[in-house]
Amino acid sequence: MDIKNFSKPLTIDKVKITDSFWNNKIELVRQEVIPYQYRALLDEIDDAEKSHCIDNFRKAKIVKDKISMGIKTKKYPVDKWEYNDNNSNPESFKGWVFQDTDVYKWLEAVGYSLQNHPDDELKKKAFEFIDIICDAQLENGYLDTLYIINDIDRAFTNLRDHHELYCFGHLAEAAVSIFNSTDNDRLLNAAYRFADLICDTFGADKKRGYDGHEIAEMALYKLYRQSNNAKYLNCAFYLIDERGRKPYYFDIEQGKETHDDNYFYNQAHCRPKYQKEAVGHAVRGGYLYSAMADLAYENNDDELADACNSIWDNIENKKLYITGGIGSTVDGEAFTFDYDLPNDLAYAETCASIGLIFFARRMSQIQINSRYHDVAERALYNTVLSGMAEDGKSFFYVNPLEVLPTASHCDSRKRHIKPVRQKWFSCACCPPNLARLISSLNEYIYTLNDNTIFINQFISSIAKTDLCKLSLIGTGKKYQIQIGDLKKSFNLAIRIPEWCDSFDINCDYELKNGYLFTKISVNTTLELCLNYEPKIIKCSNRVRYNTGKAAVMYGPVVYCLEEADNGSDLQMLKLDTSSPLEYRNGKIYANGWREQPDNKLYSAYNESEKEECTLTFIPYYKWGNRGENEMCVYVRI
Amino acid sequence: MDIKNFSKPLTIDKVKITDSFWNNKIELVRQEVIPYQYRALLDEIDDAEKSHCIDNFRKAKIVKDKISMGIKTKKYPVDKWEYNDNNSNPESFKGWVFQDTDVYKWLEAVGYSLQNHPDDELKKKAFEFIDIICDAQLENGYLDTLYIINDIDRAFTNLRDHHELYCFGHLAEAAVSIFNSTDNDRLLNAAYRFADLICDTFGADKKRGYDGHEIAEMALYKLYRQSNNAKYLNCAFYLIDERGRKPYYFDIEQGKETHDDNYFYNQAHCRPKYQKEAVGHAVRGGYLYSAMADLAYENNDDELADACNSIWDNIENKKLYITGGIGSTVDGEAFTFDYDLPNDLAYAETCASIGLIFFARRMSQIQINSRYHDVAERALYNTVLSGMAEDGKSFFYVNPLEVLPTASHCDSRKRHIKPVRQKWFSCACCPPNLARLISSLNEYIYTLNDNTIFINQFISSIAKTDLCKLSLIGTGKKYQIQIGDLKKSFNLAIRIPEWCDSFDINCDYELKNGYLFTKISVNTTLELCLNYEPKIIKCSNRVRYNTGKAAVMYGPVVYCLEEADNGSDLQMLKLDTSSPLEYRNGKIYANGWREQPDNKLYSAYNESEKEECTLTFIPYYKWGNRGENEMCVYVRI
Repeated sequence: MDIKNFSKPLTIDKVKITDSFWNNKIELVRQEVIPYQYRALLDEIDDAEKSHCIDNFRKAKIVKDKISMGIKTKKYPVDKWEYNDNNSNPESFKGWVFQDTDVYKWLEAVGYSLQNHPDDELKKKAFEFIDIICDAQLENGYLDTLYIINDIDRAFTNLRDHHELYCFGHLAEAAVSIFNSTDNDRLLNAAYRFADLICDTFGADKKRGYDGHEIAEMALYKLYRQSNNAKYLNCAFYLIDERGRKPYYFDIEQGKETHDDNYFYNQAHCRPKYQKEAVGHAVRGGYLYSAMADLAYENNDDELADACNSIWDNIENKKLYITGGIGSTVDGEAFTFDYDLPNDLAYAETCASIGLIFFARRMSQIQINSRYHDVAERALYNTVLSGMAEDGKSFFYVNPLEVLPTASHCDSRKRHIKPVRQKWFSCACCPPNLARLISSLNEYIYTLNDNTIFINQFISSIAKTDLCKLSLIGTGKKYQIQIGDLKKSFNLAIRIPEWCDSFDINCDYELKNGYLFTKISVNTTLELCLNYEPKIIKCSNRVRYNTGKAAVMYGPVVYCLEEADNGSDLQMLKLDTSSPLEYRNGKIYANGWREQPDNKLYSAYNESEKEECTLTFIPYYKWGNRGENEMCVYVRI
Repeated sequence: MDIKNFSKPLTIDKVKITDSFWNNKIELVRQEVIPYQYRALLDEIDDAEKSHCIDNFRKAKIVKDKISMGIKTKKYPVDKWEYNDNNSNPESFKGWVFQDTDVYKWLEAVGYSLQNHPDDELKKKAFEFIDIICDAQLENGYLDTLYIINDIDRAFTNLRDHHELYCFGHLAEAAVSIFNSTDNDRLLNAAYRFADLICDTFGADKKRGYDGHEIAEMALYKLYRQSNNAKYLNCAFYLIDERGRKPYYFDIEQGKETHDDNYFYNQAHCRPKYQKEAVGHAVRGGYLYSAMADLAYENNDDELADACNSIWDNIENKKLYITGGIGSTVDGEAFTFDYDLPNDLAYAETCASIGLIFFARRMSQIQINSRYHDVAERALYNTVLSGMAEDGKSFFYVNPLEVLPTASHCDSRKRHIKPVRQKWFSCACCPPNLARLISSLNEYIYTLNDNTIFINQFISSIAKTDLCKLSLIGTGKKYQIQIGDLKKSFNLAIRIPEWCDSFDINCDYELKNGYLFTKISVNTTLELCLNYEPKIIKCSNRVRYNTGKAAVMYGPVVYCLEEADNGSDLQMLKLDTSSPLEYRNGKIYANGWREQPDNKLYSAYNESEKEECTLTFIPYYKWGNRGENEMCVYVRI
């Protein structure tokens, strides 16, 4: 497979989103999420758990200064995942082992946001945080506040459970984002220095090792793209290639064979190039697979590309919720086994779907196939959007497909299923992850290479490329694609989404791998019409939870039933599959029946009495915006 | 409600079971379960976790002797539920806090078994154990090896988590059983002495308190019936009546307000007489509710009787699996909320159904209604029987209604669901509990009062009463009831089971509360025919897990599909509800369809291709006897 530099995304600065639906979300992130997170980082929100994040950097600077002055510092334990014991020393580290990333993710989102919408006030706040962060960095480049504050001598001794390389990864991603939007290079230099330390520390002929929570690989690749310094690329490859080798580094590090599920949780059960299935913690998985695709692309690495293909197949065909959620169990926030997609126990973390979108775009860069952006779109319009309330003020970490509020309150197995969005989380990964994805959505619309522009997502926008200026205008079914400033003729490839029944376009074209290809030789305007109607969708009967049921979709958007529209006991509703679905004002109406409740718990079989009714479906991403109530995606047929 | 001495069970010595199905089970218990448990108690089984039970009693005797000689003994911690740390001192207590009950449950079963089948060898072994137990009892009557061995000064300081009163309860139950079968009163005297200590220690004007795991109440009532000593009755009442009073004893004992789920887990969230629903740990609940019914009966206590009625209603109508299982969650082995009866996550502990049978019989003693023995029969023929393998050599602790072995192996949420029975458990409650129930089944067939004999279960047997000698002969549909040695005329009441469509009997009768009443004035033989066929059963649509599905029952026996008969992917099978079910050689055959697997995970709705097939159902209690395979009770219709 010749994958060398097949296509690359059009970067954020080249794409201006004009779509009002998405601009509204981007504005929500800018006006609500980013300011709220800013205050959270400073522990200024009374009714939220404290982040301690900025405070940790300040403490780290004090320790660093003592170290540089040769003053002996006090040691504190580094033996936990979370450090919030009120009795512990106030000078010690507080929060989760990955608490530093709170500010990095915020800065990354801020960087993207500033590109879309300059804001001097916000820039100033970002620079203040950057100074606080960089002031804590040790002379040798090390920058993880847990170990700086509590016990620097034990740095890099527990890569499996602690998150130094993960923190580095988010630092690097933030640094690149900030540099590209502001030209402030202080954070980028800090990232390079920490990267240099990591490159100097880990390697085949140095200390073995790799991160317990992946992201450093993707981040090192980003630093390589930014700097063109091959050592970052090589280190990214090393971290991937070392993973899963035996004897396990994690065993050596712990000083014993732990047989900890054979490290499926960390995707370290075998070498990535031999991995065939998506396993373990779903966010970690998504980040590793994304980096594998990055390296496959960059190094033309067939082995990694084959592994990525196989893992992708496994996710798309066997481990993907209809909503684009992945990782079906709360235990380890992880993938389970093929076709295990329970609705009421689903985990389907928002971050995992974000990771899936990262992976999808990278796969589309090494292989022309609409399936990748089909899946990215499914994740984006359902699980990702669902992650944020309509007012941008609360968030879902977990995205179930069926909710009974009583169960969430009374059944400890479902305590992770929240019937309404939460304002913040002590493990605050999803809200800032959402913020950084939505603020950088520009990057997910187009990919291109020397002679082809791919339109991957139908999000109205203006793209500036070396080939032309391209405007995608429209929403729903009708789109105009205006080509101006043509520099040289090129191929335009437009993804024909899987949910589209047919399409019309005013040009000659060829279909290949789910893309419509047409040659553009003059400035022109194409008129594209995607024909699709609300549809009843069946889930494979290999998924035992959904037999005898169906879901409703309209385009990429999954719909659901809520108690607010349909009354309680949604399981008593049945959908008439033979009568048409009607779309009106954002809702879909369908004919169906409501069964009368059966009063006896067990009785000789007879059909329950039922009466005709209209079922009202709303977009899945809108559920839970009207207080606690029942919700389900799948309805009986 | 006048419940005073409404009816009482006919005791084990008065009833001889002649039914071959049940005698086979009783013999399995005698020949397999009791000898296996004997060896387990002595830690003689190589591939099972050690019981340590007898060993603990031996250690306790050594400590006791030291104490009585005024020798200072070493203290060990009493801060855990389980004491198996290999590094701990070999002289300290080992096992669970309730490890003493292993031998008590065994002795109780042995007592019943000896009544059914004298066995001098077994009696000798029992007496040896009794000597070992009694030798460990302290001068003041205290007998719990954990505290005797590890730290007697802390006895009765953690009633919530530790199980001294629970151990006492099983001791007393064993003692009564052994005394009634062998006239050996050493254990009974030990039980009285421990009971005396408890009566002297706890009370309104003494130390407040009650057990974290109920059973002492039932046991004290048994001692009262045995001894006619009212202080045991009063103490049983005290333990019930003190429970749930505020401030909570458990809080006082722990020295803080724990707000530990408000003690729902221990049924101590409010005073029993005000309890309306079954909550918390299902076995504990069953034992408490049984004792409440005992006291309602004995004391003509309307408040307790009303609470029992309400709790019973809640279980029967909202928290009962079709298999008679109760307690649907593994977390706390507990009841959850109304209509929450998941199939694949079910806990439905064998012991909980045994507790339900205890409760049912006691309810039937205070109120004439066939519903109690209907439920007892449902539990007995399904969850209880399912608890033991056909060869008596392995056991289910948990009784799910749907099993996918892959899920049990790969999904940590289903790790409690075992696809095949286990030989033993470190927490070995279910096998001995099964042994004691099955060995005392005689007690569950008849209840009687001065002028009425109630036939509650259709188990062939000969009953000797003060009114007559009664022989119930038959199986399945046809029964003869032979009345001989009539001393005076009486009413015979025969339960007409809920699964029975109609019946024929050669006498005049009146139907009341599900019982057929007929006056018996001469020696006679009644011919009873219960008419029933295999039936398709619907679960109420209030249970959201079973909508669109049905189950198959034949009489009280629930049937299920197993992969061994029907192939894998049982969720692809559909039952034709319009064609008849055929019973042949212990299996039920039905017409249905098997869907072809849908290859795409998501696709526009269309009916899956399917072909006609025969579905083969086996009794639920027989599942899992042919190796690991899929099983389900509910099938799509």
